[in-house]
Amino acid sequence: MLRDPEASPLSVREPRHTDSSLDYDNIENHLFLEEERRMGHMSFRCLEISRWVICGLIGVLTGLIACFIDIVVEKLAGVKYVVVKKSIDKNTEIGGMCISLILWAALNSAFVMVGAIIVAFFEPIAAGSGIPQIKCYLNGVKVPRVVRLKTLMVKVCGVICSVAGGLAVGKEGPMIHSGAVVAAGVSQGRSTSLKKDFKIFEYFRRDTEKRDFVSAGAAAGVSAAFGAPVGGVLFSLEEGASFWNQLLTWRIFFASMISTFTLNFVLSIYHKKTGELSSPGLINFGSFDLKYNIYEIPLFIVMGAIGGLLGALFNVLNYWLTIFRIRYVHRPCLQVMEAMLVAAVTATVSFAMIYFSNDCQPLETQNVAVFQGFCADGEYSAMATAFFNTPERSVRSLFHSPAGTYKLETLGCFTLVYFFLACWTYGLTVSAGVFIPSLLIGAAWGRLFGIICSLTSLYALMGAAAQLGGIVRMTLSLTVILVEATGNVTYGLPIMLVLMTAKIVGDYFIEGLYDVHIKLQSVPFLHWDAPATSHSLTAREVMSSPVTCFNRVEKVGTIVDVLSNTSTNHNGFPVIIQTAASEEVRRLCGLILRSQLIVLLKHKVFVERARSRLRQRKLQLKDFRDAYPRFPPIQSIHVSQDERECMMDLTEFMNPTPYTVPQDTSLPRVFKLFRALGLRHLVVVDDDNRVIGLVTRKDLARYHLGKHGLEELHLAHT
Amino acid sequence: MLRDPEASPLSVREPRHTDSSLDYDNIENHLFLEEERRMGHMSFRCLEISRWVICGLIGVLTGLIACFIDIVVEKLAGVKYVVVKKSIDKNTEIGGMCISLILWAALNSAFVMVGAIIVAFFEPIAAGSGIPQIKCYLNGVKVPRVVRLKTLMVKVCGVICSVAGGLAVGKEGPMIHSGAVVAAGVSQGRSTSLKKDFKIFEYFRRDTEKRDFVSAGAAAGVSAAFGAPVGGVLFSLEEGASFWNQLLTWRIFFASMISTFTLNFVLSIYHKKTGELSSPGLINFGSFDLKYNIYEIPLFIVMGAIGGLLGALFNVLNYWLTIFRIRYVHRPCLQVMEAMLVAAVTATVSFAMIYFSNDCQPLETQNVAVFQGFCADGEYSAMATAFFNTPERSVRSLFHSPAGTYKLETLGCFTLVYFFLACWTYGLTVSAGVFIPSLLIGAAWGRLFGIICSLTSLYALMGAAAQLGGIVRMTLSLTVILVEATGNVTYGLPIMLVLMTAKIVGDYFIEGLYDVHIKLQSVPFLHWDAPATSHSLTAREVMSSPVTCFNRVEKVGTIVDVLSNTSTNHNGFPVIIQTAASEEVRRLCGLILRSQLIVLLKHKVFVERARSRLRQRKLQLKDFRDAYPRFPPIQSIHVSQDERECMMDLTEFMNPTPYTVPQDTSLPRVFKLFRALGLRHLVVVDDDNRVIGLVTRKDLARYHLGKHGLEELHLAHT
Repeated sequence: MLRDPEASPLSVREPRHTDSSLDYDNIENHLFLEEERRMGHMSFRCLEISRWVICGLIGVLTGLIACFIDIVVEKLAGVKYVVVKKSIDKNTEIGGMCISLILWAALNSAFVMVGAIIVAFFEPIAAGSGIPQIKCYLNGVKVPRVVRLKTLMVKVCGVICSVAGGLAVGKEGPMIHSGAVVAAGVSQGRSTSLKKDFKIFEYFRRDTEKRDFVSAGAAAGVSAAFGAPVGGVLFSLEEGASFWNQLLTWRIFFASMISTFTLNFVLSIYHKKTGELSSPGLINFGSFDLKYNIYEIPLFIVMGAIGGLLGALFNVLNYWLTIFRIRYVHRPCLQVMEAMLVAAVTATVSFAMIYFSNDCQPLETQNVAVFQGFCADGEYSAMATAFFNTPERSVRSLFHSPAGTYKLETLGCFTLVYFFLACWTYGLTVSAGVFIPSLLIGAAWGRLFGIICSLTSLYALMGAAAQLGGIVRMTLSLTVILVEATGNVTYGLPIMLVLMTAKIVGDYFIEGLYDVHIKLQSVPFLHWDAPATSHSLTAREVMSSPVTCFNRVEKVGTIVDVLSNTSTNHNGFPVIIQTAASEEVRRLCGLILRSQLIVLLKHKVFVERARSRLRQRKLQLKDFRDAYPRFPPIQSIHVSQDERECMMDLTEFMNPTPYTVPQDTSLPRVFKLFRALGLRHLVVVDDDNRVIGLVTRKDLARYHLGKHGLEELHLAHT
Repeated sequence: MLRDPEASPLSVREPRHTDSSLDYDNIENHLFLEEERRMGHMSFRCLEISRWVICGLIGVLTGLIACFIDIVVEKLAGVKYVVVKKSIDKNTEIGGMCISLILWAALNSAFVMVGAIIVAFFEPIAAGSGIPQIKCYLNGVKVPRVVRLKTLMVKVCGVICSVAGGLAVGKEGPMIHSGAVVAAGVSQGRSTSLKKDFKIFEYFRRDTEKRDFVSAGAAAGVSAAFGAPVGGVLFSLEEGASFWNQLLTWRIFFASMISTFTLNFVLSIYHKKTGELSSPGLINFGSFDLKYNIYEIPLFIVMGAIGGLLGALFNVLNYWLTIFRIRYVHRPCLQVMEAMLVAAVTATVSFAMIYFSNDCQPLETQNVAVFQGFCADGEYSAMATAFFNTPERSVRSLFHSPAGTYKLETLGCFTLVYFFLACWTYGLTVSAGVFIPSLLIGAAWGRLFGIICSLTSLYALMGAAAQLGGIVRMTLSLTVILVEATGNVTYGLPIMLVLMTAKIVGDYFIEGLYDVHIKLQSVPFLHWDAPATSHSLTAREVMSSPVTCFNRVEKVGTIVDVLSNTSTNHNGFPVIIQTAASEEVRRLCGLILRSQLIVLLKHKVFVERARSRLRQRKLQLKDFRDAYPRFPPIQSIHVSQDERECMMDLTEFMNPTPYTVPQDTSLPRVFKLFRALGLRHLVVVDDDNRVIGLVTRKDLARYHLGKHGLEELHLAHT
């Protein structure tokens, strides 16, 4: 009775993978210790310096990508606007109107089609914001292809298309994913897709180091998206690093700073104001000077509660929609068609609303962009301003435009329509983030709330925070991101209270949007702690058993057979000592990974060959690093019938001191050990140090605290 | 050959303690599991809510203490100023001048005397800023009496006296210590000093929970001191938490926010501007609007290097001074006299400098306080302004007063004099922080640098950052604290670069000031990682051996004898199984702590008594919690000769699943396990699960990376 010990991948269309967990535990085998001994004090210094250099590079490249996206989107949107505006100006009667509408809808659909096609057909993992995927990666789940160069290309082009296509999406979320890919690429010093190996940074070719750099990349992405370097660091820590290391954090911060600085600097050159560092992020909230009073705090809390409710509604609707999509819309053509449909509907609805809304306002000199829409000269349409602008500008306009800019009905309609559009859009097969739409919905009803209670436009900010908090349920990092984006430290308290309330209220109904999507993919995601009431569960009940073990000197045939057995697909194998004394000896002496065995088989490291001097050189760590991370499948390695009779000595390659727990250890203790050390396999032993089971990520992720106490999830494969 | 396995305390005059490490590992014995089973889902909710309530209380109380210190210092300084000013106005000729000088010096010395006496005679642990002690506590070193109510009282009064006494000190560092004490007190729901038990929060009476709250308290202290809630959280994380937990961090942030808000609110009432939240911290840098250009970045880096050099000089001088003090100035009377001497010298030097400096400037309407000193009417003395103000105001004046306020010579002299005064002052037996003097020195030479290169007063800020960074060597948290204090997010990059350079340059010569002091006390402080080149060391070489073990059912006499043996002073004892089969069986089955054994002995939990029904009730976790944290010494427990022959069954009380490592585990692996889980004892076992050694904090803290590779420290007891 063998439970399948490891996990299913994040993308639904992905076939079952052998490798789906990352290993943050160093394998301190003989090769490793030998290498460490050879390396002097100075080599460690050099490594440390390389780490800093890599973080600097990550920052620069992430900043440049953000610039690229920003500039191209602006250009495309500009072209589109000019074309549609011309058409509207030409055809002012009803019949002509239709032509303009069709033109607009067609343009948008075309953009979205391109975006959807590259995602659906070339790299489905690039769909969405990428934040759930990065969360999983940092958590230790191996998500196939998530940090590849191809993914980055598709992501960048895809997000440009979907934003230019006028969808209710933002380009901020994808920045986080992009930063992570950049980090994974730079730190490995090679690209497997391009078949180019720069022969640098070879030391970093392992999960532990790579994960650290990916954290830095994600932070750099947040930093470039919101101009929030500290928020970026906190995001990475909140999502990823369970073990806080001062130097690592400091490097992450460095990457974040460089990233926002690069963006700022390049954009300042682009805007022909070289050196004027005024746009630290893709989105700028503008500067807030509004003061709040203490008596307003209860109002903020009420707003937080509204945000929590609306956010929960958003997540519930999106949950149903996603289930529908998983069942019925899983063919790429259908996905592209759905995306185009959404684009056309978005264009039509916006057009209709601009046309039928009757909120022309006298044009005054303002610092925010406004649109004339169908209004008389000297006037502008508030609805057109809300819909036609880039979403980032609309957010800023809602935050800052003076009292009286927006009518009640305009804001109400806009909130309602945009809410459903955004909800429909998230989960489409396009690259797009949910941050900006959330902020926009929140800012709209926040402003509405402010007008009804005759309060300042600060309420637009609080509404935006509440709505975003209600949807994504991030806490500390989101507070800091928003505070950094507003640049006003005194807003810390109200924003914190709003986000806290939104989270408490929202969590009562459903989890955050990212967690909903992670759960739908049945990924073995480990939370911070084991469920509180799980102390009565022991390792014996949790572990997978029996375990396939290898002897220290094992027959090649046995190894090949075990690795080829697709029904088990184990990734880690305890190594046991063969003593003559007793028959039933399974005493643990090490742990070896599937990937290591594959490299050994590939290099034919057999005892007999060593004796007959057929093996030219000793296998080194470099051979394992060269194969990292795409170890070939066992089927691709040819082992002849003669070779099957050879023996393999695993002593030098296995991890000789794997972490173990006794069988009576409680689930929280196992969990803590597993999580704090970033393990992939934890061997359960009895009092005589005999292997009796193996705990993997999946065994731990099954348990969670439901409404009625401890529940066991079925992490089935969809 | 038994190496002493545990540590020495932080205070030099402290006698050797039995208990000197904290245990962050849950002891999941039968009692614990039973209690968990009894607690329902709701009880865990309630606990979670109590945690939030406690954090709120910590914030409020820390904020109030900060207000109290601020207001009292201001009042006292005001009284002192009026008295001295009157005397100066009366006696303008040279002879009379001396009278004023003597009056001033006497007043200052009197204040300082009071401050020094309460510290030296009542609570020596309250000396200094308290940051090294809190760092040690959060690191897991048990520092005796550091979080007691008495310490808090002495600290608060002491810091008021030393600031009012005109010493070159700040009141910010002590706030961190105060916050930590408040947290430790509130979270335990009782005060042992006051003999008052509120019977609340009893669940939190153990090291794990208490440490979490102390982190929150320290963060609240930073937050109140600098108006930097995010900086506070990062400080706590940087210094303390090795394992990052989202909910915990969120609670720490809550405490920080509440703390700065309380301070702000109460001070706004005190200043009769209720609701105008303009003073988030004890120190306010004022608002900075100055822009910097990219070409200035190399200049910032140069300033960082200068700060690193000056900081290293400061630390070296202070190191020598501290060694001198440990050798010769260890009697309380001498300590009080030294403090008074410093106060008198500080007053004299300041007076002389004001008198001899010739930098009277025309008085203009300015928003910073200036002093007439010995200048004509309508003029003011820049030197007097620098010396007479509270250091916080002087910092602000250096940051913001317009060009031309300070002459070159004034700034030069001031830097020089204040540098040596501050260096002499730190380490005196008074409560005082080093943040503000460092900022002041740095601001002075920064401003000087700015004037020489004809640059803006932004250089005063960068100088302050460089100097502070050069002395304390904090990184991420300090950047965020400074950014929050200036309220300008765009200064993030230059401040980060300055602090980074200062740290790199400074680290080349000597460690940070706090680390110097921690090292001088031979505390077993664990850094983030094991030294990089230590992979060749194994647990076998690191551990203490042989280990005193107990049998699962052990004779009371044996236990009492072991606990009474002052030459070993072990705190944790592996429990082994006695099997009939073999003689030499030391197979591990649990771990029991000295404190647990003491409670068992006190309640006379003997097998014989249980059989004879003499024991009324079963021992519960509550009995252990009631004794926490001041477990009585073994000498105070009377065990009769008859009782010595009884047996004790440890099965129910021991930790049945202690973490273990095989003997070949490398030092970095042991270190990581120890640090990530916050362990106190790690049992080393052989292949047959027999105990062969015990690794404690001290065994790990011995190794560090010196100039010539791995070095072994001698953590001797001074």
